[in-house]
This record gives sequence, structure tokens and C-alpha cells, in this order.
Amino acid sequence: MTDTYSTRLGFAKFLAQEAGFLAQKLYREREADFVSTKGLQDFVTQADRAVEAHIRSLLLRHFPSDAMLGEEDGLMGDSSSIWVVDPIDGTANYMRGLPDWAISIAFCWEGEPEVGVIFAPERNEMCWAVKGQGAFCNDQPIQVSACAAPDQALLLLGRSARGSLSAYLDLVRSVIDSEMEYRRNGSAAVSLMDVAQGRAEGYYEAHLNPWDALAGVIIIREAGGIVRCAKGAEMLTAGSPVLALARNLDGKVLQTLAVE
Amino acid sequence: MTDTYSTRLGFAKFLAQEAGFLAQKLYREREADFVSTKGLQDFVTQADRAVEAHIRSLLLRHFPSDAMLGEEDGLMGDSSSIWVVDPIDGTANYMRGLPDWAISIAFCWEGEPEVGVIFAPERNEMCWAVKGQGAFCNDQPIQVSACAAPDQALLLLGRSARGSLSAYLDLVRSVIDSEMEYRRNGSAAVSLMDVAQGRAEGYYEAHLNPWDALAGVIIIREAGGIVRCAKGAEMLTAGSPVLALARNLDGKVLQTLAVE
Repeated sequence: MTDTYSTRLGFAKFLAQEAGFLAQKLYREREADFVSTKGLQDFVTQADRAVEAHIRSLLLRHFPSDAMLGEEDGLMGDSSSIWVVDPIDGTANYMRGLPDWAISIAFCWEGEPEVGVIFAPERNEMCWAVKGQGAFCNDQPIQVSACAAPDQALLLLGRSARGSLSAYLDLVRSVIDSEMEYRRNGSAAVSLMDVAQGRAEGYYEAHLNPWDALAGVIIIREAGGIVRCAKGAEMLTAGSPVLALARNLDGKVLQTLAVE
Repeated sequence: MTDTYSTRLGFAKFLAQEAGFLAQKLYREREADFVSTKGLQDFVTQADRAVEAHIRSLLLRHFPSDAMLGEEDGLMGDSSSIWVVDPIDGTANYMRGLPDWAISIAFCWEGEPEVGVIFAPERNEMCWAVKGQGAFCNDQPIQVSACAAPDQALLLLGRSARGSLSAYLDLVRSVIDSEMEYRRNGSAAVSLMDVAQGRAEGYYEAHLNPWDALAGVIIIREAGGIVRCAKGAEMLTAGSPVLALARNLDGKVLQTLAVE
């Protein structure tokens, strides 16, 4: 499959760039009805839908036998080759003009991510990886942090509305009691991109959907990090907790997060 | 004093830009001893010191009668005209390559900020304000958010090592129980810049030093927001809790934060 992966990587990078520029254009041209509410503090913009539709139409034209799972319109097609797409991860940042949002595109073969691309247009940063070939940001190789000292470590924590608030607050307390620090930026894809680049030692969220996570999963692994999440069909259909870690900090953090 | 403010605004913008480019250059050229530890999760880099020294030398040459208070080297001079400078706010982000850090420069007259400039080089965003003349980002006028609905509001929360962890976690719980959301980006100056631009409805931290806060204080006020913090000599010598809010959300948030 390696040749196919290389073709699909090139296409995923093209898709992500197209999607990013479209999202920026739609934000500049937004009108009063740009944002709708899906639930409490859960938003969708006209851009989420338009960007996903654009990606879907390009995929259908160029890879008509592949399936696609997108955040907004779900699964189309039936194949062992499936694209998993979040058109805008961090919508609540995007719609406010906060820069931490990204397009996340994974290509999975038999349920496992083999190609991943995350593009954060406001940072002008594109990270990508192909299984077995390392991870890159804007053409430079990237690696997770080598930090082994909790008192110098930074974790990025997401809060899922599916997890309990108390469990989240216990986690923050546990992280700080272990002498680590934390940030919360509101985008799983941007957080995973930062861990892959060694800017933070880990990321945890009690529940991610497959489109939030899968591009980041392969990028982190190829950058030398560890990821724990559900595999295959389970991840694709239900999502799971996701823990991404720089390798040297592993044991201590797993203890702190009480996920060992 | 208005003419003097206009001259000082121009100079503060020049200083911030010089400082930003110097910090970026020093990061690119960093070596193994670039970061030192001041305390638990409290870092200083060679760039913090070099940037402050550079600002100090330029101020001394161009405004020799003014005083200057900087994060790294404290107060020099004795005057009613005092510059309050954070060479790099968000050092822990800066030293890791995370983009949320900024240069913060305030000019105070008799203890109150009259001119403020915040420059976030990785975002290429410079916000500024002069008392009575409005607030701007990259030459465009800016305003705080008009949002009045807590269930659509976003707060940026800082955590000061001087405040108790339990009080911070209670605050996060209270914000989320009030149907608001929160982020924590690790830079007071960047947070205040985001509130001034209407990207978040408020910012709170249990303790800020004057160099973290004062440029943001005048920028938020000139962008139509409300700031509660200590005044004059008290703020300059000890700092204080800082609450910055978009106007329409005021009452509900004050109740949630239990600071009324």
C-alpha cells in the first residue's frame, strides 16, 4: 500500500490547505446567521458544513471507491479505505477569531490510521505523517519532547462534555499536585500537533470522536510518542478516551492520570 | 499630556516590535542553557533578560527622566512618568515554541496606565490604546464582545501560584456550572488582548503583577470593557487580582466569580 499512501498523503495535504483557505474566507465574509447551536456550548458554523462538503466532493471525484466519515454528515461509502475528516476542529475558537483551530484529515486502512494531516491555518502550520515514515511540520521532521521531569512538564487537557466535570477537575488537581502544569486550548487537533512537536509533554481528553483524534494519533506515533485509545471499528464508531504522551514521561504521568 | 502620549505610543510600538523580533531571534539561536528555573514551573530565559535590558537601554536614551519597572530587574528611576514592562509574558509558552506569548508595555502617569501596547509576534498582532482615544489591533479599531448570554460566553482563566489551587478549581466549576466555557492559555497579556478584541467575554486571575496587567488594563477599557484591579501605587508595588469583562455580561459573571 505504500505507493497509495504517498498519493493519498499528497492529496490530504492539498485537501487540508484548500479547506483552511475556504474556512478563512468564509469567516471573513460571515453574516449574522453564521453560527448555530447544537447543544450547550456546542456550536456549528456554516463553514463547518461547507468545508466538509467541499472535502467530500473532492474525495468522491478523486478516490470514488474510498469511504469517508466526517463530523457533520457522518459516513458515506463502504470500504476498508476510509477517510476520517474534521472540517474545523475547535469550532468555538474559529467562530470567535481565536487562532487555535485546525483541519484534521486521516486516512485509515482496515480501521487503523496510516496517513494523518493536521493544518492550523492561523499558525500557518501543517503537520503530517505516514506510517513508518516519521512525522513532519512544514517539511521539517518533528519529535515529541525528551523531558523526563514532571516539574518541567506541561500537559494539554481537553474537557469533554461526555465526561463528568468532577473527574476533569480531579485530573487538573492531580496534574498540578504532581508538579506539572496544564493548558486548555479548546482544540484536540491543535493539542495533538503541539505534543507531536515537543511543545507539551502530553494530551488527555476523556472522550474524543474519531475525526478529532485519528490524524493526531498517527502523527504522534510517528513523532516518537505513545498514544492510548480504542482501535479499529470501536474507535471509528464510538470514539474513546485519548492519551498522547512523550515517551520519557510515561510512567509518572500514567500514574497521575490514574489510567494505568 | 496628550502630545506626550502620542509620542510615547509611537515609541512603545517601536519598542514592542524591536523586543518581539529580538525574542524570536534569540529563540532560534538558543543553546542548552537558554532556560533557568526561578521556582516550581516558573522559568526565565536568557531572552527575558536580554529583551528587558534592550528596552531599558532604549528608554533610558530617549526618555531619560522617566522611570521604568520591569519584571526581571525591577524599578529604576523616580518619576510620575513610569514605564511598566514585561519583556516576555508567557515565558513558559515562549520557551516551548507555543505561540501565546507577548511583549507588554504600559506607560503610567501618576500610577494609572495612559498608554498600553501588547505585541504577540507569533500571531503578528499588536494591540494598543491611549486613554480616551479607543483601542486598536494592527491599526483596526477593536471592541469587547457584545455577548450577553452566559451559555455562549467564554472566559479565559489564569492560575496564579499565589492563589490556592482549590479556589482556582472552584472557580472553574462555578464557570462551567453557570453554562460558560473556559480556556487557559498561559499568558495574561495574550488573554487581555483576546478579550479586548471580543474573542472571549472575560479574563480573571487571582493575582497579576503590574507588568502582566497594566497595558491590558488600558486596552480593555478603551475597547469598551470593564477592569477591576488595584489602582496606583498599590498596583505598581504589589499587583492584585485582575478581572476584565465585556460590558453586557457583567452582573452574571461577577456573581459566578463571587467577586461582587
